[in-house]
Amino acid sequence: MRSETELDAEDCRTLLERGVVGRIAFWAEDGPRIHPVNYSVLDDAVLVRTKPASALARIAQGGSGATVAFQVDGLDHADQRGWSVLARGPVDELSDAEAVAALERVRPPRAWAPGERTVVVRMCWTELTGRRLGTGWDPVRDQDYRRLR
Amino acid sequence: MRSETELDAEDCRTLLERGVVGRIAFWAEDGPRIHPVNYSVLDDAVLVRTKPASALARIAQGGSGATVAFQVDGLDHADQRGWSVLARGPVDELSDAEAVAALERVRPPRAWAPGERTVVVRMCWTELTGRRLGTGWDPVRDQDYRRLR
Repeated sequence: MRSETELDAEDCRTLLERGVVGRIAFWAEDGPRIHPVNYSVLDDAVLVRTKPASALARIAQGGSGATVAFQVDGLDHADQRGWSVLARGPVDELSDAEAVAALERVRPPRAWAPGERTVVVRMCWTELTGRRLGTGWDPVRDQDYRRLR
Repeated sequence: MRSETELDAEDCRTLLERGVVGRIAFWAEDGPRIHPVNYSVLDDAVLVRTKPASALARIAQGGSGATVAFQVDGLDHADQRGWSVLARGPVDELSDAEAVAALERVRPPRAWAPGERTVVVRMCWTELTGRRLGTGWDPVRDQDYRRLR
Protein backbone atom coordinates (compact mmCIF):
# COMPACT_ATOMS: atom_id res chain seq x y z
CA MET A 1 0.00 0.00 0.00
CA ARG A 2 1.26 3.47 -0.80
CA SER A 3 1.99 5.56 2.24
CA GLU A 4 4.02 8.59 3.15
CA THR A 5 5.55 9.03 6.60
CA GLU A 6 7.45 11.89 8.20
CA LEU A 7 10.90 10.93 9.44
CA ASP A 8 11.76 11.96 12.99
CA ALA A 9 14.58 14.40 13.72
CA GLU A 10 17.04 11.67 14.71
CA ASP A 11 16.54 9.69 11.51
CA CYS A 12 16.83 12.85 9.43
CA ARG A 13 20.14 13.66 11.06
CA THR A 14 21.47 10.12 10.74
CA LEU A 15 20.63 9.93 7.03
CA LEU A 16 22.11 13.37 6.41
CA GLU A 17 25.33 12.52 8.25
CA ARG A 18 25.83 9.27 6.37
CA GLY A 19 25.45 10.79 2.94
CA VAL A 20 28.16 11.36 0.37
CA VAL A 21 26.36 13.30 -2.36
CA GLY A 22 23.50 15.72 -1.88
CA ARG A 23 21.88 18.46 -3.92
CA ILE A 24 22.03 22.11 -3.08
CA ALA A 25 19.44 24.52 -4.47
CA PHE A 26 19.94 28.25 -4.45
CA TRP A 27 18.87 31.31 -6.32
CA ALA A 28 21.79 32.43 -8.48
CA GLU A 29 21.99 35.68 -10.42
CA ASP A 30 20.24 33.97 -13.34
CA GLY A 31 17.57 32.06 -11.43
CA PRO A 32 17.24 28.84 -9.46
CA ARG A 33 19.82 26.07 -9.69
CA ILE A 34 20.25 22.57 -8.29
CA HIS A 35 23.78 21.21 -8.13
CA PRO A 36 24.78 17.76 -6.95
CA VAL A 37 27.68 18.13 -4.50
CA ASN A 38 29.82 16.10 -2.17
CA TYR A 39 29.46 17.29 1.39
CA SER A 40 30.02 16.52 5.01
CA VAL A 41 28.14 17.28 8.20
CA LEU A 42 29.77 18.75 11.28
CA ASP A 43 27.69 19.85 14.25
CA ASP A 44 24.55 21.38 12.76
CA ALA A 45 26.05 22.42 9.45
CA VAL A 46 26.40 21.03 5.95
CA LEU A 47 29.82 21.77 4.45
CA VAL A 48 30.64 21.82 0.76
CA ARG A 49 33.86 22.63 -1.09
CA THR A 50 33.54 24.76 -4.18
CA LYS A 51 35.69 26.72 -6.58
CA PRO A 52 36.35 30.41 -6.08
CA ALA A 53 33.99 32.44 -8.28
CA SER A 54 31.47 29.58 -8.65
CA ALA A 55 27.83 30.62 -8.38
CA LEU A 56 27.62 28.93 -4.99
CA ALA A 57 30.76 30.69 -3.73
CA ARG A 58 29.32 34.03 -4.76
CA ILE A 59 26.10 33.35 -2.86
CA ALA A 60 28.00 32.32 0.26
CA GLN A 61 30.43 35.22 0.09
CA GLY A 62 27.70 37.78 -0.43
CA GLY A 63 27.43 38.26 3.31
CA SER A 64 23.66 38.38 3.15
CA GLY A 65 23.15 34.94 4.68
CA ALA A 66 21.07 33.84 1.71
CA THR A 67 18.91 30.82 2.44
CA VAL A 68 19.57 27.64 0.51
CA ALA A 69 18.00 24.19 0.46
CA PHE A 70 20.06 21.02 0.71
CA GLN A 71 18.58 17.62 -0.05
CA VAL A 72 19.66 13.98 0.12
CA ASP A 73 17.61 10.98 -0.84
CA GLY A 74 17.64 7.28 -1.49
CA LEU A 75 15.49 5.85 -4.26
CA ASP A 76 14.50 2.26 -4.79
CA HIS A 77 13.24 2.01 -8.36
CA ALA A 78 12.42 -1.67 -8.13
CA ASP A 79 10.01 -1.22 -5.23
CA GLN A 80 8.99 2.35 -6.09
CA ARG A 81 9.87 3.67 -2.70
CA GLY A 82 12.40 6.02 -1.20
CA TRP A 83 13.29 8.54 1.43
CA SER A 84 14.42 12.14 1.34
CA VAL A 85 15.76 14.64 3.83
CA LEU A 86 15.68 18.41 3.36
CA ALA A 87 17.79 20.89 5.33
CA ARG A 88 17.32 24.61 4.93
CA GLY A 89 19.21 27.57 6.31
CA PRO A 90 21.56 30.46 5.58
CA VAL A 91 24.94 29.96 3.90
CA ASP A 92 28.22 31.68 4.50
CA GLU A 93 31.86 30.99 3.77
CA LEU A 94 33.87 29.17 6.41
CA SER A 95 36.84 31.52 6.31
CA ASP A 96 38.36 31.04 9.74
CA ALA A 97 41.63 29.15 9.14
CA GLU A 98 41.42 27.21 12.38
CA ALA A 99 37.88 26.06 11.67
CA VAL A 100 38.85 24.94 8.17
CA ALA A 101 41.85 23.04 9.55
CA ALA A 102 39.63 21.41 12.18
CA LEU A 103 37.15 20.37 9.49
CA GLU A 104 39.95 18.82 7.44
CA ARG A 105 41.07 16.77 10.40
CA VAL A 106 37.64 15.61 11.49
CA ARG A 107 35.41 15.26 8.46
CA PRO A 108 36.56 16.81 5.19
CA PRO A 109 34.06 17.11 2.33
CA ARG A 110 35.66 15.04 -0.45
CA ALA A 111 34.80 16.15 -3.96
CA TRP A 112 34.40 13.65 -6.80
CA ALA A 113 34.68 16.51 -9.26
CA PRO A 114 38.01 18.01 -10.30
CA GLY A 115 39.25 21.53 -9.72
CA GLU A 116 40.73 23.54 -6.91
CA ARG A 117 37.88 23.70 -4.43
CA THR A 118 39.38 26.11 -1.96
CA VAL A 119 36.15 27.74 -0.78
CA VAL A 120 34.31 25.97 2.05
CA VAL A 121 30.63 26.86 2.06
CA ARG A 122 28.74 26.26 5.29
CA MET A 123 25.00 25.98 5.65
CA CYS A 124 23.81 26.02 9.27
CA TRP A 125 20.41 24.49 9.03
CA THR A 126 17.46 26.02 10.82
CA GLU A 127 15.04 23.37 9.58
CA LEU A 128 15.54 19.66 9.03
CA THR A 129 12.70 17.50 7.76
CA GLY A 130 12.31 14.21 5.96
CA ARG A 131 9.88 11.63 4.74
CA ARG A 132 9.74 8.14 3.41
CA LEU A 133 7.43 6.36 1.03
CA GLY A 134 6.20 2.87 1.65
CA THR A 135 5.82 0.71 4.73
CA GLY A 136 7.73 -2.31 6.01
CA TRP A 137 11.20 -0.90 5.58
CA ASP A 138 13.58 1.34 7.48
CA PRO A 139 15.70 3.78 5.47
CA VAL A 140 18.25 4.04 8.28
CA ARG A 141 18.78 0.27 8.45
CA ASP A 142 18.40 -0.54 4.77
CA GLN A 143 20.92 1.82 3.24
CA ASP A 144 23.00 0.64 0.30
CA TYR A 145 25.95 2.85 1.12
CA ARG A 146 27.01 5.26 3.82
CA ARG A 147 29.87 7.46 4.79
CA LEU A 148 31.91 5.74 7.47
CA ARG A 149 34.38 8.47 8.33
CA MET B 1 41.66 10.63 -13.44
CA ARG B 2 39.02 13.08 -12.29
CA SER B 3 37.37 14.96 -15.09
CA GLU B 4 34.18 16.87 -15.70
CA THR B 5 32.53 16.99 -19.12
CA GLU B 6 29.51 18.87 -20.41
CA LEU B 7 26.80 16.62 -21.87
CA ASP B 8 25.49 17.58 -25.27
CA ALA B 9 21.86 18.58 -25.79
CA GLU B 10 20.84 15.18 -27.17
CA ASP B 11 22.26 13.26 -24.21
CA CYS B 12 20.65 15.71 -21.78
CA ARG B 13 17.28 15.14 -23.40
CA THR B 14 17.68 11.36 -23.53
CA LEU B 15 18.62 11.14 -19.86
CA LEU B 16 15.78 13.46 -18.88
CA GLU B 17 13.22 11.48 -20.91
CA ARG B 18 14.26 8.15 -19.43
CA GLY B 19 14.02 9.28 -15.83
CA VAL B 20 11.41 8.27 -13.28
CA VAL B 21 12.24 10.47 -10.30
CA GLY B 22 13.73 13.96 -10.40
CA ARG B 23 14.00 16.84 -8.00
CA ILE B 24 12.23 20.14 -8.42
CA ALA B 25 13.52 23.27 -6.68
CA PHE B 26 11.42 26.36 -6.26
CA TRP B 27 11.06 29.32 -4.03
CA ALA B 28 8.01 28.76 -1.81
CA GLU B 29 6.44 31.32 0.47
CA ASP B 30 8.85 30.24 3.21
CA GLY B 31 12.04 29.97 1.15
CA PRO B 32 13.72 27.48 -1.16
CA ARG B 33 12.63 23.86 -1.33
CA ILE B 34 13.77 20.72 -3.14
CA HIS B 35 11.20 17.98 -3.58
CA PRO B 36 11.81 14.59 -5.18
CA VAL B 37 8.98 13.93 -7.63
CA ASN B 38 7.88 11.45 -10.25
CA TYR B 39 7.61 13.08 -13.63
CA SER B 40 7.32 12.58 -17.32
CA VAL B 41 8.60 14.47 -20.36
CA LEU B 42 6.37 15.41 -23.28
CA ASP B 43 7.67 17.67 -26.03
CA ASP B 44 9.85 20.24 -24.29
CA ALA B 45 8.14 20.11 -20.94
CA VAL B 46 8.54 18.29 -17.63
CA LEU B 47 5.18 17.26 -16.15
CA VAL B 48 4.52 16.52 -12.50
CA ARG B 49 1.35 15.58 -10.67
CA THR B 50 0.79 17.25 -7.33
CA LYS B 51 -1.96 17.75 -4.78
CA PRO B 52 -4.20 20.81 -4.85
CA ALA B 53 -2.91 23.40 -2.37
CA SER B 54 0.60 21.92 -2.28
CA ALA B 55 3.41 24.48 -2.30
CA LEU B 56 4.25 23.47 -5.87
CA ALA B 57 0.63 23.79 -7.00
CA ARG B 58 0.46 27.29 -5.53
CA ILE B 59 3.60 28.34 -7.41
CA ALA B 60 2.26 26.95 -10.69
CA GLN B 61 -1.20 28.43 -10.23
CA GLY B 62 0.13 31.85 -9.33
CA GLY B 63 0.06 32.86 -12.97
CA SER B 64 3.38 34.61 -12.69
CA GLY B 65 5.29 31.95 -14.61
CA ALA B 66 7.74 31.54 -11.73
CA THR B 67 11.00 29.91 -12.78
CA VAL B 68 11.88 26.56 -11.26
CA ALA B 69 14.82 24.19 -11.57
CA PHE B 70 14.37 20.48 -12.26
CA GLN B 71 17.22 18.03 -11.86
CA VAL B 72 17.87 14.35 -12.50
CA ASP B 73 21.07 12.47 -11.84
CA GLY B 74 22.70 9.08 -11.64
CA LEU B 75 25.34 8.47 -8.99
CA ASP B 76 27.84 5.65 -8.86
CA HIS B 77 29.17 5.58 -5.31
CA ALA B 78 31.54 2.71 -5.95
CA ASP B 79 33.41 4.53 -8.70
CA GLN B 80 32.77 8.04 -7.38
CA ARG B 81 31.30 9.22 -10.63
CA GLY B 82 27.95 10.34 -11.94
CA TRP B 83 25.95 12.49 -14.27
CA SER B 84 23.34 15.18 -13.77
CA VAL B 85 20.97 17.11 -16.00
CA LEU B 86 19.38 20.43 -15.08
CA ALA B 87 16.32 21.94 -16.79
CA ARG B 88 15.10 25.40 -15.95
CA GLY B 89 12.08 27.35 -17.01
CA PRO B 90 8.70 28.77 -16.01
CA VAL B 91 5.94 26.65 -14.49
CA ASP B 92 2.23 26.78 -14.98
CA GLU B 93 -0.71 24.47 -14.43
CA LEU B 94 -1.78 22.27 -17.32
CA SER B 95 -5.47 23.02 -17.01
CA ASP B 96 -6.74 22.32 -20.51
CA ALA B 97 -8.80 19.13 -20.22
CA GLU B 98 -7.85 17.87 -23.67
CA ALA B 99 -4.15 18.37 -23.02
CA VAL B 100 -4.41 16.51 -19.70
CA ALA B 101 -6.29 13.67 -21.38
CA ALA B 102 -3.66 13.51 -24.13
CA LEU B 103 -0.89 13.37 -21.52
CA GLU B 104 -2.66 10.50 -19.73
CA ARG B 105 -2.84 8.54 -22.96
CA VAL B 106 0.72 9.15 -24.08
CA ARG B 107 2.97 9.47 -21.07
CA PRO B 108 1.33 9.95 -17.67
CA PRO B 109 3.52 10.99 -14.71
CA ARG B 110 3.07 8.12 -12.25
CA ALA B 111 3.47 9.07 -8.61
CA TRP B 112 5.02 6.70 -6.09
CA ALA B 113 3.55 8.80 -3.29
CA PRO B 114 -0.06 8.52 -2.16
CA GLY B 115 -2.75 11.18 -2.38
CA GLU B 116 -5.05 12.64 -4.97
CA ARG B 117 -2.64 14.35 -7.32
CA THR B 118 -5.11 16.11 -9.53
CA VAL B 119 -3.00 19.14 -10.42
CA VAL B 120 -0.63 18.72 -13.38
CA VAL B 121 2.27 21.14 -13.20
CA ARG B 122 4.14 21.83 -16.43
CA MET B 123 7.61 23.28 -16.71
CA CYS B 124 8.56 24.27 -20.26
CA TRP B 125 12.29 24.40 -20.12
CA THR B 126 14.20 27.29 -21.64
CA GLU B 127 17.57 25.87 -20.66
CA LEU B 128 18.79 22.28 -20.55
CA THR B 129 22.34 21.47 -19.46
CA GLY B 130 24.18 18.50 -18.05
CA ARG B 131 27.55 17.14 -17.09
CA ARG B 132 29.25 13.94 -16.18
CA LEU B 133 32.18 13.12 -13.96
CA GLY B 134 34.85 10.63 -14.95
CA THR B 135 36.05 9.24 -18.25
CA GLY B 136 35.64 5.87 -19.93
CA TRP B 137 31.91 5.53 -19.42
CA ASP B 138 28.74 6.67 -21.12
CA PRO B 139 25.82 7.67 -18.89
CA VAL B 140 23.33 7.10 -21.71
CA ARG B 141 24.51 3.54 -22.35
CA ASP B 142 25.34 2.56 -18.77
CA GLN B 143 22.05 3.36 -17.04
CA ASP B 144 20.79 1.04 -14.33
CA TYR B 145 17.13 1.79 -14.95
CA ARG B 146 15.05 3.76 -17.38
CA ARG B 147 11.48 4.57 -18.17
CA LEU B 148 10.34 2.43 -21.08
CA ARG B 149 6.89 3.88 -21.69
